[in-house]
Amino acid sequence: MNYPSHLIEQAVNELARFPGIGKKSALRMVLYLLKQNPEDVDRMSDALTRLRHDIKFCALCNNVADEDICRICSGVNRNKQLLCVVEDLRDVMAIENTGQYNGLYYVLGGLISPMDGVGPENLNIDKLVNRVTTEGVDEILVALSATMEGDTTTFYLSKRLRESGVKITTISRGIAVGGELEYADEITLGRSIMNRVPYTG
Amino acid sequence: MNYPSHLIEQAVNELARFPGIGKKSALRMVLYLLKQNPEDVDRMSDALTRLRHDIKFCALCNNVADEDICRICSGVNRNKQLLCVVEDLRDVMAIENTGQYNGLYYVLGGLISPMDGVGPENLNIDKLVNRVTTEGVDEILVALSATMEGDTTTFYLSKRLRESGVKITTISRGIAVGGELEYADEITLGRSIMNRVPYTG
Repeated sequence: MNYPSHLIEQAVNELARFPGIGKKSALRMVLYLLKQNPEDVDRMSDALTRLRHDIKFCALCNNVADEDICRICSGVNRNKQLLCVVEDLRDVMAIENTGQYNGLYYVLGGLISPMDGVGPENLNIDKLVNRVTTEGVDEILVALSATMEGDTTTFYLSKRLRESGVKITTISRGIAVGGELEYADEITLGRSIMNRVPYTG
Repeated sequence: MNYPSHLIEQAVNELARFPGIGKKSALRMVLYLLKQNPEDVDRMSDALTRLRHDIKFCALCNNVADEDICRICSGVNRNKQLLCVVEDLRDVMAIENTGQYNGLYYVLGGLISPMDGVGPENLNIDKLVNRVTTEGVDEILVALSATMEGDTTTFYLSKRLRESGVKITTISRGIAVGGELEYADEITLGRSIMNRVPYTG
């Protein structure tokens, strides 16, 4: 594309690096910025810079935090014997929003994906194994996406943690609540039949 | 939503102000930023700040430019008697990409939209009328979106420019090239029958 100004071109190229943002969307964002007050744009770029420079990661669970130990890990009402292993902070937020979980989290920072060049050594796995071995935890609840990468990572984790003797569970897969049977894919439907549970009415 | 850090929350709120970007997409963008090198994030926020502070607008056509007069307005091979009126720089880029237009442009900076509080006084219309009246132009090609706002603006412009005696044209509406007749909406199809053109085979 032929941009009318090199400032536009640079800003479009920078914004188009975001996942899911193409050049057209980036140009739309640039046009929006041009219509804003300079102070508003400064506030935005300031927020991005501070985000990257000042962010902290919890020393225990690797989740982003404002302090050295995050609010969840330092929570007094949390069950510290239950550890939920997730990919990133979005999963922590999603599970917290359910109000159904009272344990701690452990953020891996990604999933094993040879296609993307992500191996076990790129994830926070050794620290998890150490923690489970040295400190002792009752249960590890692995809550990863139901994708090939998620399943591979769950399998790898279960092998690494087997020696410690910790109880390993995963979240259940099945028909979504409110989902219609005929529209479920056959693998999900098959899995939900295999993993059927007693009816508790 | 309950963000694990106020830095995350601020960055999400700033990014979610972009049109078409919700809180979930903004959080995805924030996660992307956290995985980048600090220098890359600095370069992005720097590009956004400079965009807003250093951008210039062409004194003739209002399009963004690196100089006081943009490359198109100062082009020697351009037909300076033909002026294409567009909404914003994306339309200039789209028309330039066709390679079918050799005149100059005039950027309105928006469309008349009472619903959004945009009246004729918020657009660069007076300067256009002045230019046509004092300098003389052969033809004004109004190339605005085929929406209610676009049609309203075209109608308003035609009324304002009528006195000057300039020839006013609009781009043709009709079935898109490659478009199938049965999928065209009836208003477009009706318009393309009304505005039928001699077959030049």
